[in-house]
Amino acid sequence: MRAAVFNEPGDISVEERPRPEIDAPTDAIVRVTHTAICGSDLWFYRGDSDRDAGAPVGHEPMGVVEAVGDDVTSVAPGDRVLAPFSISCGECEFCRTGLHTSCVNGDSWGGDNGGAQGEYVRSTHADGTLVRVPDRYADDEATLRSLLPLTDVMGTGHHAAVSAGVEPGSTVVVVGDGAVGLCGVLAARRLGAERIVAVGHHEDRLRLAETFGATETVAERGEAAVERARALTHGGPAHVMECVGAASAMNAAVDIVRPGGTIGYVGVPYGVDDEGLDVFGLFGDNVTLAGGVAPVRAYADELLADVLQGTLDPAPVFTETVSLDDIGEGYRMMDEREAIKVLVKP
Amino acid sequence: MRAAVFNEPGDISVEERPRPEIDAPTDAIVRVTHTAICGSDLWFYRGDSDRDAGAPVGHEPMGVVEAVGDDVTSVAPGDRVLAPFSISCGECEFCRTGLHTSCVNGDSWGGDNGGAQGEYVRSTHADGTLVRVPDRYADDEATLRSLLPLTDVMGTGHHAAVSAGVEPGSTVVVVGDGAVGLCGVLAARRLGAERIVAVGHHEDRLRLAETFGATETVAERGEAAVERARALTHGGPAHVMECVGAASAMNAAVDIVRPGGTIGYVGVPYGVDDEGLDVFGLFGDNVTLAGGVAPVRAYADELLADVLQGTLDPAPVFTETVSLDDIGEGYRMMDEREAIKVLVKP
Repeated sequence: MRAAVFNEPGDISVEERPRPEIDAPTDAIVRVTHTAICGSDLWFYRGDSDRDAGAPVGHEPMGVVEAVGDDVTSVAPGDRVLAPFSISCGECEFCRTGLHTSCVNGDSWGGDNGGAQGEYVRSTHADGTLVRVPDRYADDEATLRSLLPLTDVMGTGHHAAVSAGVEPGSTVVVVGDGAVGLCGVLAARRLGAERIVAVGHHEDRLRLAETFGATETVAERGEAAVERARALTHGGPAHVMECVGAASAMNAAVDIVRPGGTIGYVGVPYGVDDEGLDVFGLFGDNVTLAGGVAPVRAYADELLADVLQGTLDPAPVFTETVSLDDIGEGYRMMDEREAIKVLVKP
Repeated sequence: MRAAVFNEPGDISVEERPRPEIDAPTDAIVRVTHTAICGSDLWFYRGDSDRDAGAPVGHEPMGVVEAVGDDVTSVAPGDRVLAPFSISCGECEFCRTGLHTSCVNGDSWGGDNGGAQGEYVRSTHADGTLVRVPDRYADDEATLRSLLPLTDVMGTGHHAAVSAGVEPGSTVVVVGDGAVGLCGVLAARRLGAERIVAVGHHEDRLRLAETFGATETVAERGEAAVERARALTHGGPAHVMECVGAASAMNAAVDIVRPGGTIGYVGVPYGVDDEGLDVFGLFGDNVTLAGGVAPVRAYADELLADVLQGTLDPAPVFTETVSLDDIGEGYRMMDEREAIKVLVKP
């Protein structure tokens, strides 16, 4: 099969790779029809994190089940499915409490399972991982585009909102206008937030944030952005969603949040080892820091229901679509911020 | 009046100081009868934090109201009162939501207000700050000893428990066997925790933890303590109370807590600037970090009620009592860990 592999920073190519096969009775093989490039893929693309040369990449698979192991009961060949960025068993203590990212049997895409940016992947623990799309929507391209973000960014934005304690009537500041931040705006609106202040650096993305439900936007940078966000919320909101994943954004969130408030964060806080986290800022103001790597699987069913009934549509985060052969161009567009998020069709 | 002042690290003396007077109509003057030396007083005593030479010290006052300003309505001369380590108005947004430490009119002991380790203090915002002890207990020495920790350590331990989300049936690990950790054990038991594992380094303090309600104790250090606490709780508890206030203890808490759990922390995380906080540990396991500087005033009324009805007694944390003249000896005993906490009688 053909699949994207990482060669070195700035170099993603499409190569012939062994097609994954059923190895355990709980496995399923999925023919990938839709996938995406993630902001976190830029870490290895930019050389900010290590990745082995020749490693398959991609962790946001949607496709059609090709084969299943003997123990798989929730999906069958021919079913349209999507899967979160992490593989989980669905049965352990953590999966049962909705913390699938801490699954004791957890697994990941890539390696022998194949990367989602390729023609086929193997989902280990298929019953716990794959989310079935009802047959009536299984081939509706518009619906599939709207569902694909549930593999990662929509569930992650939702986790930021849930972690920040957003509820009906809340005033919330969303830090970050990338795909996760934009999905975070959607999630905050969905949870009933009354005022949603989106903080970002790109006018086009902030306009999209407004169509997603942001009531105000802040385009300033650094301290000016903090001051503007605080002024708009009369001294800071009780809920801040940190959707960037960088120490600078995290510390901006600490500066913005109201004393006694909560920061929901969902991005690996890149740079925090160097810059440090403003723990004293959290401490002095009794700010709660909640969140972490999003248990996207826990949210898939409810978000899927809303997409299917037409009340949630994150598809506009896909501003570009490329074929698998053109995935290198997709990475370039993400890297140079020409695209918010790139949909890839293997 | 006579009052303790800081001269230089290791040197506390008792000097003649101007007696504070009513300056604003919301002030009260309190003749201090009981106060204490706090673990946080050791920061300047040890030279770990700056303090001006000649500055009055102490922030845990209990005494008798000597005079009140014209606007003070909640206490009158002759009333027995105690006061938290921070002064708060009781009327602003934050005081009304129980976050008195973020009071917009907040003030502190020391300076012209006098330090609590002295004969008199001025409480600005007396109505918002002073907690009146009912007359029938006003001169009962045993009761007063049990109430004095409500000025700081008992409220702080309670804040750790509340922040960690302790509730009936909880399993909780309390990191730290100082006065705050011990009060944290009391607080966890009071909130209904079923298993309370106290982690500390001192056998005598861990024995006291057991009398306070700890069901198990861990006396190991470092990684061994983490492993023991995790083993006792089958992989870590959902609730960890960090009651030390040091980066090493905070990171031990991160290592101990169960994925998806909550750390309630109440000590200024000393050393976190150098050692760093294990943010990636928090992130990967979706651990919530809650707490901060304890709004002791918010908890004073309910804790006072329990002390008076005999169901709560933190007095055993006072293992030594000194007169004001002997306060230097009190600091020495605290510094050398001969005493858990020292009661001072001006």
